[in-house]
Amino acid sequence: MAKKLRQDASVVDGYGYLTNIAFDSVVFGFSGASLKILLMEYHNTGLFALPGGFVKLNEDLNAAVKRGLKERTGIDTIYLEQCYVFGDKARHQPAVMNTILKANGWAVPKEHWLLDRFISIAYYALVNYNDVTLVPDALSDSCTWYDITKLPPLILDHRLIVAKAQQTLQANLDSKIVGGNLLPKQFTMKELQQVYEAILGENIRRTTFQRKMLGLGILKRHQKKYSGKAHKAPYMYSFKKNKTAFSKQGG
Amino acid sequence: MAKKLRQDASVVDGYGYLTNIAFDSVVFGFSGASLKILLMEYHNTGLFALPGGFVKLNEDLNAAVKRGLKERTGIDTIYLEQCYVFGDKARHQPAVMNTILKANGWAVPKEHWLLDRFISIAYYALVNYNDVTLVPDALSDSCTWYDITKLPPLILDHRLIVAKAQQTLQANLDSKIVGGNLLPKQFTMKELQQVYEAILGENIRRTTFQRKMLGLGILKRHQKKYSGKAHKAPYMYSFKKNKTAFSKQGG
Repeated sequence: MAKKLRQDASVVDGYGYLTNIAFDSVVFGFSGASLKILLMEYHNTGLFALPGGFVKLNEDLNAAVKRGLKERTGIDTIYLEQCYVFGDKARHQPAVMNTILKANGWAVPKEHWLLDRFISIAYYALVNYNDVTLVPDALSDSCTWYDITKLPPLILDHRLIVAKAQQTLQANLDSKIVGGNLLPKQFTMKELQQVYEAILGENIRRTTFQRKMLGLGILKRHQKKYSGKAHKAPYMYSFKKNKTAFSKQGG
Repeated sequence: MAKKLRQDASVVDGYGYLTNIAFDSVVFGFSGASLKILLMEYHNTGLFALPGGFVKLNEDLNAAVKRGLKERTGIDTIYLEQCYVFGDKARHQPAVMNTILKANGWAVPKEHWLLDRFISIAYYALVNYNDVTLVPDALSDSCTWYDITKLPPLILDHRLIVAKAQQTLQANLDSKIVGGNLLPKQFTMKELQQVYEAILGENIRRTTFQRKMLGLGILKRHQKKYSGKAHKAPYMYSFKKNKTAFSKQGG
């Protein structure tokens, strides 16, 4: 019986998954000097949620998250990192999942595995906004970018998950993370400052920012290419690999 | 049948738990200028492991980890933080759990829930070494401190979990974490340097360390108390609350 139910629900990730474990992804993009994330809107419900999914019985967790994101949004090969595990019992709200299932034509009994309690492993992803082509899955009307400061109400604790992902991004701001992903490989100091401002949600003085960034020793400045007006072009920078603010400078 | 089995196995955390989800804790202490962690040795097996456990059906994840640590080691009210989720399918090695169960007098069938695949949510804890009284649980011969550089072989991927916890500790070294936990509330610059050296696994030049730490703006220096030889006593420092290296200094 339980097996039959899971097979019937294959459209919502069906049979053959680990129980009680889900994942959700906060996908960050940077455009128009503001930070954005991806949200799914479920058919006929007005419910918005982060893209997520479940882990197959014979699948590594990290691989499952990549697969889930590809299936639900169309996004491939992106920078993904674990962020936090949301495991409060209060996040168990079977009525929400029931609403989504019903709106998609599925009536399931109370003991259905999708109505059970789930611990969600949250990931955050950084993508180059302009490289991404979005494709919503069968469950969703849309998969769209939303400005981080203008999100609609989200299901369950997804607003908390977004907040935690933002905090993690802020905390990791000075290390490797921002470099290769939200910006092109080389960038100007101004572009870097805009990313910092969008992530931190505050303005930073240009001189303060520049002194601080150069002081961290994590940036490499590149030669300007010679041309008639090269002296007017701003310097381009890139991140040194795996350079942290402290550990390599002692000893 | 499944219910009966879980009840029988109550000594190993029994019936009433979320399936497929475990947790493991890396508990750090600092003593004799070196970093140590807690390990359990299972009865009659020679197997060493991190203290861990499972989440009850009606229990928050973070509360479960606190409870598990208390039950298995006797440690109460400590600083605990999530570290990483270990979810590779390769970590499913039922023979190891079977060995531990058998050594404790439990013969379980193949479909027993404890022999299923588990995703483990790793936590790290920081404790004041001198405050801790260790009490091993019924499954274990001992619960003992081991120097991080001299660990015995550990079961499953527990060595990887330790490595990840060390990396996380290193990455968080300059923020709030070290302050309130591995050291007393006030400390000398030398004590702080010893903690850094133990965590990073390398020596740091005294002048480099002092300049760097003061430059981060996260330390508060306290007045020396007056006495006849007060001028020979080193300055005492404490951490400013939630002060990060960058986010509060811009704008």
